[in-house]
Amino acid sequence: MSVTAVEGFEAAGIASGIKPSGNPDLAIVATADRRSVTAAGVFTTNLAQAAPVQVTRAHLADGRAAAVILSSGNANAATGDAGRADALRMCTLAAEGIGVAAHDVLVCSTGLIGIPMPMAPVESGVPALCAELAPGPEAGLRAATALMTTDTVAKQSRADADLGDGRHIHVGGMAKGAAMLQPAMATMLAVLTTDAVVGPDALHSALERAVQDSFNALIVDACTSTNDTVLVLANGASGGPEIGTSGHAYHALVEALSTVCDDLAHQMAADAEGATKLATLTVRGARSGDEARRAARAVAASQLVQCSLYGQDPYWGRVLSELGASGAFLDPERVDITYNGVTVCRHGIAAIHDETALRESMTRRDIEIVCHLHAGRGEATVRFTDLTHAYVDENMGTS
Amino acid sequence: MSVTAVEGFEAAGIASGIKPSGNPDLAIVATADRRSVTAAGVFTTNLAQAAPVQVTRAHLADGRAAAVILSSGNANAATGDAGRADALRMCTLAAEGIGVAAHDVLVCSTGLIGIPMPMAPVESGVPALCAELAPGPEAGLRAATALMTTDTVAKQSRADADLGDGRHIHVGGMAKGAAMLQPAMATMLAVLTTDAVVGPDALHSALERAVQDSFNALIVDACTSTNDTVLVLANGASGGPEIGTSGHAYHALVEALSTVCDDLAHQMAADAEGATKLATLTVRGARSGDEARRAARAVAASQLVQCSLYGQDPYWGRVLSELGASGAFLDPERVDITYNGVTVCRHGIAAIHDETALRESMTRRDIEIVCHLHAGRGEATVRFTDLTHAYVDENMGTS
Repeated sequence: MSVTAVEGFEAAGIASGIKPSGNPDLAIVATADRRSVTAAGVFTTNLAQAAPVQVTRAHLADGRAAAVILSSGNANAATGDAGRADALRMCTLAAEGIGVAAHDVLVCSTGLIGIPMPMAPVESGVPALCAELAPGPEAGLRAATALMTTDTVAKQSRADADLGDGRHIHVGGMAKGAAMLQPAMATMLAVLTTDAVVGPDALHSALERAVQDSFNALIVDACTSTNDTVLVLANGASGGPEIGTSGHAYHALVEALSTVCDDLAHQMAADAEGATKLATLTVRGARSGDEARRAARAVAASQLVQCSLYGQDPYWGRVLSELGASGAFLDPERVDITYNGVTVCRHGIAAIHDETALRESMTRRDIEIVCHLHAGRGEATVRFTDLTHAYVDENMGTS
Repeated sequence: MSVTAVEGFEAAGIASGIKPSGNPDLAIVATADRRSVTAAGVFTTNLAQAAPVQVTRAHLADGRAAAVILSSGNANAATGDAGRADALRMCTLAAEGIGVAAHDVLVCSTGLIGIPMPMAPVESGVPALCAELAPGPEAGLRAATALMTTDTVAKQSRADADLGDGRHIHVGGMAKGAAMLQPAMATMLAVLTTDAVVGPDALHSALERAVQDSFNALIVDACTSTNDTVLVLANGASGGPEIGTSGHAYHALVEALSTVCDDLAHQMAADAEGATKLATLTVRGARSGDEARRAARAVAASQLVQCSLYGQDPYWGRVLSELGASGAFLDPERVDITYNGVTVCRHGIAAIHDETALRESMTRRDIEIVCHLHAGRGEATVRFTDLTHAYVDENMGTS
């Protein structure tokens, strides 16, 4: 049910000693035949990009890759020239381990920032890791497990799509990430595999679309960490003509990638550090989709809204205030807000409702908030979690 | 030491019953002779402006006012037409109580959003309040106390300035506000008085300048609540020629207003809900002052940076990451970061330092962080606080 759900991909995961805890911390995904295949990536927009992000971007310049090596426990970020050399060395070690060129290996790391990568465990670990490469669900799970940092469960997904011409394609994926409350910095990494026949441009375009409405709709902001990376490898095993940048087959590919990304994003939100609530917030009736996204993110990123959720308090006044401060246009006296389907604010003022029933529904883990601005047709949905004592505990120290 | 520190102003504060706790909740500031004088205001930029903000803006159209009536416990926000009528009624009641026109009375409220203003206590309270108007420090303190919501102490300040032509002016002020962690919604209100001789345009310009580097440098964002308001009344009692919009006298006025605003802002930051740390963050070497402000605010608003402070952990990697995601230009490998004067990051990577001494200094309440981007000459300073269990407790519920 992971990257190995697609024929022609192998994976492995081991404990190398990067993590003092002794938990698994090195993973690899590679093509079974060690050929390089079409590859694409979407990366953090942070100007302080970690060394592995810089190396992976360079290695993706030709739109091809044969493997991805991943480590957890140390982000190899804010590590300068030494960090770049270490990231490159990880590629070289993996390349030697599986018999490909170093520039066909991509690299991802996640963990603490500003601490040199411990290379002794990497030097001995990567050859051992390569020796473990295998097809099948157990190998996929071992790889997904080795990505985990504050995650409590491994995150895997898969989806199929009908291209409409008799062909089916398959997509598999794994991810790590938790506590991604914007503007937090918890890294999210994801690696996807597919058997689609597709060139680098179409694959990159499809991946960007899939990420936009999945990982980037987590608040939870996939674009701010130093290391955020989503990669996809496409081995073409499904055969037939190449998928272009439009048409039914392209949209089927976007759909399959989106399904996997959305499922992984949902698993990440549900596993957020210290959260007791998983909220889905939809803004409707904004002047544009961009304004809807901006308004939704402003509400979801609000510490006060997050605290209210933790207190199971449907305090819509804070939601309205965040909408008003978001930069999205609205007439506050046209705004309607519902919590769990109950209208608590109509035309910008309190609406009479069954308070007992609403309070009862606020005890659920899943909370749904809908805001209608009545200013246009723009709509956006984001997921976020509550701000809890446990969140503070988890983020007080680096140790 | 408050609004009554300036000759010719009186104040009062009482408990009217708006707050279920029975604490003081109504305040007034008025000219001693009940004449209207030059007045100016700076308001929240939130599109969802509370009723008292709307009424006060209208009443300030002529640049004059004789009094400010203030209430705490209910924000009269998201209350629609009824809320506007209630805010106007508060002005009318105060106007009747002191014998001025209703349009010469300004109004501020702070408290919960979305709940109709309880007018019964206001109807009986405002006349009683007006009967208490008096000069002197006790009256000023009573007014400042009646503004408090989650504040634990009343906030007052005063300053003098030499106009350079033999005249001195005086400025007094009071404020409320706490837990103003951006993007939070805790309202900040401030009322200033001065005996400067000044017209509405020069007074408004001077107030805007004073607010920019004081209340607006709290993260802690004075511009996002539905009710944020800073007002100033200038009775001209210092005599002499009118202060224009430039020149030495103007700058002396700006300086005196800034001193009072900055002192009040500092008191607000120090009183932030549930905070154990008060951090001062300076960004130097940005391409512009705006970029420096943007970068500083991004770091200060970070939940993870705030949690690290609570844990007394000088985790500069999070600071660098927030700088990189802020939208301000930087080359991460030129950035230097110090905590309490100790360089922990030089040229974007870890700098060797005395970790024991630094950890010792992190136990202090006041923490100073300086980031140098080495990209230009822009500089900005913001104050912020840590994210604690107590903050979560205070904001979990509305009750």
